[in-house]
Amino acid sequence: MRYELYYWPGIQGRGEFVRLALEDAGAAYVDVARRPRGMTAMSRFLESRSVKRPPFAPPFLKAGKLVIAQTANMLLFLGPRLGLAPKNEAGRLWAHQLQLTLADWVAEVHDTHHPVASSLYYEEQKREAKRRAETFKAERLPKFLNYFEQVLERNRSHGLASNAFSYVDLSLFQMIEGLRYAFPRAMTKQKRKYRRVIALHDRVAARPRLAAYLASERRLPFNQEGIFRHYPELDDRS
Amino acid sequence: MRYELYYWPGIQGRGEFVRLALEDAGAAYVDVARRPRGMTAMSRFLESRSVKRPPFAPPFLKAGKLVIAQTANMLLFLGPRLGLAPKNEAGRLWAHQLQLTLADWVAEVHDTHHPVASSLYYEEQKREAKRRAETFKAERLPKFLNYFEQVLERNRSHGLASNAFSYVDLSLFQMIEGLRYAFPRAMTKQKRKYRRVIALHDRVAARPRLAAYLASERRLPFNQEGIFRHYPELDDRS
Repeated sequence: MRYELYYWPGIQGRGEFVRLALEDAGAAYVDVARRPRGMTAMSRFLESRSVKRPPFAPPFLKAGKLVIAQTANMLLFLGPRLGLAPKNEAGRLWAHQLQLTLADWVAEVHDTHHPVASSLYYEEQKREAKRRAETFKAERLPKFLNYFEQVLERNRSHGLASNAFSYVDLSLFQMIEGLRYAFPRAMTKQKRKYRRVIALHDRVAARPRLAAYLASERRLPFNQEGIFRHYPELDDRS
Repeated sequence: MRYELYYWPGIQGRGEFVRLALEDAGAAYVDVARRPRGMTAMSRFLESRSVKRPPFAPPFLKAGKLVIAQTANMLLFLGPRLGLAPKNEAGRLWAHQLQLTLADWVAEVHDTHHPVASSLYYEEQKREAKRRAETFKAERLPKFLNYFEQVLERNRSHGLASNAFSYVDLSLFQMIEGLRYAFPRAMTKQKRKYRRVIALHDRVAARPRLAAYLASERRLPFNQEGIFRHYPELDDRS
């Protein structure tokens, strides 16, 4: 099976959570919108009125005749096929639950720089962003970090979803990477309290296929267009 | 199987999406936190450090030994068991994708009155809420409504996920109910453009078991503590 991933070509964004799973598994896939005329293909698909099961927004995945959207849903589908999910139903529901919690966290990170509307520039909502980022750093960031730390501590396991490695571990790695880019000061302050999360991040980074991907040109750099953005004024204090 | 649902007792909130599925299917369930000492039981479970697979937040469901959190994940699990999901994998992924899109929409509705932080009162973020609600009504509300209208139109089907009825239809019903409570003026203006969505809402409301539930004391009224809140100043203009 050669998968086709469709996502905005200039950012890591939500597509990156899927990309990491495909890359870590060494799966055959095409990153369609980053190819010549790929954006045209993606737009045409999104605008077609004959697609019966349309995605609400990118990312989406084509797998044979299937078209699957919503990041966590794509990973729910891919996980078992890529050898990156627990074997039984209970384990898969648990992995998915963790992934959905990560998705909520990602949405909250996005809203630190866009608390009013995605359609407005950051500069048009700077004052609101400042307030939202303050409460995010003071309340939400420690709450989410502590949650994942607890999961690792209570299970004394190598990975979040089970002792076997899973796509959730890759997603938590990406979360930490993104937060370090966006909020380097806040993340440095949190560092010592979440040793298990950081250790998991480091184990993921050392996985050979993933390390090769991260060093390649396929890994887009973080930038000021994505979900994780670095505005120094939002990282001040904590 | 007698299910146990755990959710804040005073609001419909996210728990209601699960409640509607259980009620429509006539499933045996206990709404734990609404019983005497139920809140204590819920808090104790959430605070216990020995739970290996802890929910990040309510709602969560106990089904035998399983504990499942995240609304869409609970419906993914319950759907086939309650006869409220498509039969094959492709159909189930599609239903789940729609549910996750509804979940994104619910989060955006919540943020119209709490754009800065859930931990602050509405009164502490009124100015930001006003701006967010304006763009929500002008851009996001029509975009989501149009998306679900398109899905119904393209499939010329009785329900969203397939010709068979599914939990997604119940959730869209709840979404429309909540939006009408929160934004009666904005919703009246949208009414004519989304005839299929409204027709689906009306068909759901007429289902016998659901109608009986809605008329019962088990159905909590909408109020100013939940996700859908009516602040007239946020419903002004459109």
